[in-house]
Amino acid sequence: MPTSPADPERLRAELARVAAALQDELCAAIERLDGAARFTTDRWERPGGGGGVSRVLQDGAVVEKAGVNVSDVHGALPARPGVDGGTFGAAGLSIVVHPRSPLVPTAHANVRFVARGGAGGFGGGADLTPCYLFDEDCAEFHRALKDLCERHVPGRHAALKRAADAYFYLPHRGEHRGIGGIFFEDLDVAPERGLALAAELPRTFLAAWLAIVERRARLPFGEAERRWQEIRRGRYVEFNLVHDRGTRFGLETGGRIESILMSLPPRVRFPYDARPAPGSREAALLDVLRAPRDWA
Amino acid sequence: MPTSPADPERLRAELARVAAALQDELCAAIERLDGAARFTTDRWERPGGGGGVSRVLQDGAVVEKAGVNVSDVHGALPARPGVDGGTFGAAGLSIVVHPRSPLVPTAHANVRFVARGGAGGFGGGADLTPCYLFDEDCAEFHRALKDLCERHVPGRHAALKRAADAYFYLPHRGEHRGIGGIFFEDLDVAPERGLALAAELPRTFLAAWLAIVERRARLPFGEAERRWQEIRRGRYVEFNLVHDRGTRFGLETGGRIESILMSLPPRVRFPYDARPAPGSREAALLDVLRAPRDWA
Repeated sequence: MPTSPADPERLRAELARVAAALQDELCAAIERLDGAARFTTDRWERPGGGGGVSRVLQDGAVVEKAGVNVSDVHGALPARPGVDGGTFGAAGLSIVVHPRSPLVPTAHANVRFVARGGAGGFGGGADLTPCYLFDEDCAEFHRALKDLCERHVPGRHAALKRAADAYFYLPHRGEHRGIGGIFFEDLDVAPERGLALAAELPRTFLAAWLAIVERRARLPFGEAERRWQEIRRGRYVEFNLVHDRGTRFGLETGGRIESILMSLPPRVRFPYDARPAPGSREAALLDVLRAPRDWA
Repeated sequence: MPTSPADPERLRAELARVAAALQDELCAAIERLDGAARFTTDRWERPGGGGGVSRVLQDGAVVEKAGVNVSDVHGALPARPGVDGGTFGAAGLSIVVHPRSPLVPTAHANVRFVARGGAGGFGGGADLTPCYLFDEDCAEFHRALKDLCERHVPGRHAALKRAADAYFYLPHRGEHRGIGGIFFEDLDVAPERGLALAAELPRTFLAAWLAIVERRARLPFGEAERRWQEIRRGRYVEFNLVHDRGTRFGLETGGRIESILMSLPPRVRFPYDARPAPGSREAALLDVLRAPRDWA
């Protein structure tokens, strides 16, 4: 993207300010939804430079685990044999919500500005990971993201949606992690557009998810649905630890480990070779995870 | 190791035969211990060459999940940019047992012969992952492995023990996965010695673990111990998905996914920033995981 040499520092600082304000807003909204549990706050410093604030809510009435993390870090990248790692700076916000009910989807979004050397770009995205499929929910979520894209990066939604499908994919399972959303790295738009998109994305994302919660959180479920949820959460763990670039970047650059891994689901099962019965609601989810749809 | 060009094929075939016989023996011993659940058997073929037999026991009285896997696979290694991947062949057995009781350690061992091009070598190891520390159990387990080493690779135990401590380590946690054992790759001994060690290791390992089960499986435990066990199992997941070379090799070379990931624990928790109380039994375990001891 066409950032001038002077831009990266300013854009990182601006996104860091936006992220801090959004963190308060998102946590307040999730606390209002839950009504029972509250966020804890951990401020941390990265030994190599920078730091962040991790806010986590656990064991709530509606939300089993949620994390809203902001960070603004900088330093040296790990060197590889024969290659100087160079320096980096990254500011951003990430949010993940693991609801208690298997009928409410796990939700994740993040926005970041990453600078390497004298250049930098905006990255981020939002995606939904349901255990049970409600077409209405999927369509509404994707439409909200499409509207967001049309406002800030007109004509680009389809490409960002495809990028999410490509990114949130487990090749060893032949499955996507969820029903996708949008995803972008080093977005090639004017910096002010990138900043505006990054500032609005988390709010749009949370509003879309809250509308889903409103419809699904009070539906009854039993042990079978809960079991399926814990199995699907196993796939979430597989994706985050094996593939997710943010997680692996964090592990390699030595960020605060509890903040990096706060996205992992609270309770998980890894049974051997569990397969849903043909024709079941669980099998219907797998069909969509194996062949993403255009929901918007 | 000094294998002649004709050796690798023969050694792989011999270890494959040994592994198949050991699989029956180990599964029978675990079924006798458990008394309730039985192993299932899945035979699979690897599209690129070879195959294996996965045997899994779940939801037993003593054993929550156990897998005993044999495989004999061969084919092309993934190419990297500018580098032809070459060919490989690998035969071996791996066993992992996740007990129900938090007072019984998770146990893992594997033996393998891996050939690349015209050369090859034996690899493997055995290690113990307790959630609660019983010095007697740790010492007995390590002494059994030391005796095994003295019989087959005299004078080498200390190096193999250190290799296990180095291998089963989570740098992002500053913790070892468990209390170690032995670990080796491309063992530089005469092929017949390597084969003899590989043939005896799984049997010695299981006998040592069964002696521990005998002492601990009937001890009472409650929800607090179970919770700690599920948290520690989260570290097991982190190690296997982020670091374990066998798992990552399997994911990259496209083996049967359920066999590769059968080692994952059945039920797991990932709470945010869980820390045991100072002076507790849980904290005592962490002390040892942060500074391995010489148990033998």
